[in-house]
Amino acid sequence: MTDRIVSAPRLRAFMERVFAAEGFDAGEAAQIADVLMQADLFGIESHGAQRMMYYHHNLASGSAVVGARPEVLRETPVSALIDGHFAMGQLTACFAMRRAIDKAKRTGVGLCAVRNSSHYGIAGYYTLMAAREGLASFSMTNTGPIMVPTFGREMMLGTNPMAFCMPAEPVPFWFDASTTVVTLGRVEVYAKRGKPMPEGWTIDGEGRACTDAGRMNASILSGGMGGILPLGGEGEMHGGHKGYGLAIMVEALTGVLAQGLTSPDMSGAHGDHTSHFFLAFDPAMFGDPADIHARMSAYLRRLRESERAPGQARILTPGERAFETQARREREGIPVEANTLAELEQIARALNIPGLS
Amino acid sequence: MTDRIVSAPRLRAFMERVFAAEGFDAGEAAQIADVLMQADLFGIESHGAQRMMYYHHNLASGSAVVGARPEVLRETPVSALIDGHFAMGQLTACFAMRRAIDKAKRTGVGLCAVRNSSHYGIAGYYTLMAAREGLASFSMTNTGPIMVPTFGREMMLGTNPMAFCMPAEPVPFWFDASTTVVTLGRVEVYAKRGKPMPEGWTIDGEGRACTDAGRMNASILSGGMGGILPLGGEGEMHGGHKGYGLAIMVEALTGVLAQGLTSPDMSGAHGDHTSHFFLAFDPAMFGDPADIHARMSAYLRRLRESERAPGQARILTPGERAFETQARREREGIPVEANTLAELEQIARALNIPGLS
Repeated sequence: MTDRIVSAPRLRAFMERVFAAEGFDAGEAAQIADVLMQADLFGIESHGAQRMMYYHHNLASGSAVVGARPEVLRETPVSALIDGHFAMGQLTACFAMRRAIDKAKRTGVGLCAVRNSSHYGIAGYYTLMAAREGLASFSMTNTGPIMVPTFGREMMLGTNPMAFCMPAEPVPFWFDASTTVVTLGRVEVYAKRGKPMPEGWTIDGEGRACTDAGRMNASILSGGMGGILPLGGEGEMHGGHKGYGLAIMVEALTGVLAQGLTSPDMSGAHGDHTSHFFLAFDPAMFGDPADIHARMSAYLRRLRESERAPGQARILTPGERAFETQARREREGIPVEANTLAELEQIARALNIPGLS
Repeated sequence: MTDRIVSAPRLRAFMERVFAAEGFDAGEAAQIADVLMQADLFGIESHGAQRMMYYHHNLASGSAVVGARPEVLRETPVSALIDGHFAMGQLTACFAMRRAIDKAKRTGVGLCAVRNSSHYGIAGYYTLMAAREGLASFSMTNTGPIMVPTFGREMMLGTNPMAFCMPAEPVPFWFDASTTVVTLGRVEVYAKRGKPMPEGWTIDGEGRACTDAGRMNASILSGGMGGILPLGGEGEMHGGHKGYGLAIMVEALTGVLAQGLTSPDMSGAHGDHTSHFFLAFDPAMFGDPADIHARMSAYLRRLRESERAPGQARILTPGERAFETQARREREGIPVEANTLAELEQIARALNIPGLS
């Protein structure tokens, strides 16, 4: 099989078919597919169709449960603690962010901590829900252990991404980043392509720089020593301790605050039984929302129009490339890699449903 | 003059004397000095006595104003918008975080956006105020332009630090980091010592790596092209776009949200007319606070006790070294560099008050 361009509606329909066949009702299947499609439309292939096989395994093993429903355990006008009961992370996360949004609309701010969830896709998906209603928001999750602490060699922290979004024109300021140098998804993509990684992304069990993506991916998935470095790299010279600190912050706001599992207690690098944190607030508490919106847009424009480094065609602001990619992929389709296509066909056969083609 | 060890009470008394002579009342002078002393006690020399001359100049030039009082412009039970009226940043920030704490105690959460402030010292000082009352909190500020965007060469963002603190034993999880690879303070310290910087911290006006701290410091202070790189370094290969994104996030939550100045409109690299953001919340909204506290402490301990990389004596957690340094410096005194000592003596002469000695 070779790489192929698949139209967005066709890929979406396939994903919905898969999740319906897994046992989800139509609304749930559409919701899960929408999160994955957003990743593929934004060009974040590591979190789109590429993850279908992972979810398929999760559902088979029972680490994500069809029919489970998130439950609110504690609630105040500004907060909720939610137990996901191991429902698909996308469903629980939508439920939790919806609640944070509703609270923000009533009181100005809503904070939701979630435990016993599962892999929820791209953190930033949920911040778009808030942005569509004029709210600023955070979304964070812990994940299975994958990051080594500064000066350590044991995977003790997840990729632990943090997303933040604030409405702006022509596209929102949409920031979504792991607190590692790179995500496991990137390592997987290099491994699938058989390409060496740049130095400074991972260290092996002996604490040496490792560029072998296949070996590193296998080691991470088997829970060996070594792992991905924090944003800022090895040691403290280039701020690796800052990435490490940000990752602990995400852990504090997710696994600790929600009284769920922390990364090292999760099974598998992607992490079952993840915890999430959502915070939405209304900028209108602080002033005329149109004025704040215009200021955000103007500042982002100034960044894009500032002096470029020699040889650089363009200065981007976070989210810009994602929305451009979405516009293009909605017109032209989504490139899907051969390896991923093969996995999708395998899933279709296992579920006895029509494949992509 | 050579480097010298100064006892903490003596240094504190000197700072209070200076700010009293500048025109602040005793309570204000003690408050400002406490923020600077916390930096020196924690071993963050760049933000302690070393900054006295900067504040002295700010007060002389009127970019920080003696006698100014912060004013609440808008308020809800969970939020406040505050105008600092160019009071010393430490005073305005204490006022704002106090308000966020009070709101968090009544409603569960408090968000305060502040504009027209001035340099407020270490971001993390204010999160300690919340931690002492059992609350988790964020503190952020924008600063004068110093960071170049990913693929850019014009300073369009500040050091834009973010601090987060969550109570724990034996010391809180205390994270306080600029979103640049390094702070201007670090560059200044290298410049004062005449030492070259590591590669990957800054780029010059032609977009080339620059290790000359003196030249870079002068260029930054004069507003030339080039500047400090975002956390993650140059380009996107090692996540420089993440540090850049985090810096914009801080800008969005400070200058934009508070409708103050954004970094490129500030004069001077440290930044007058800064904006801040504070968020405090009560973990008790989400569960038994003693349980959450115990979970945080246990997770931090696990990190410290995890497998070390070869040749490393120790794995730290954020805040640990700072609190240890404080304990030592309270016993043994604070090392003050010769250059800084000379500046302190100069300030004492200018204000006609007794010097340190």
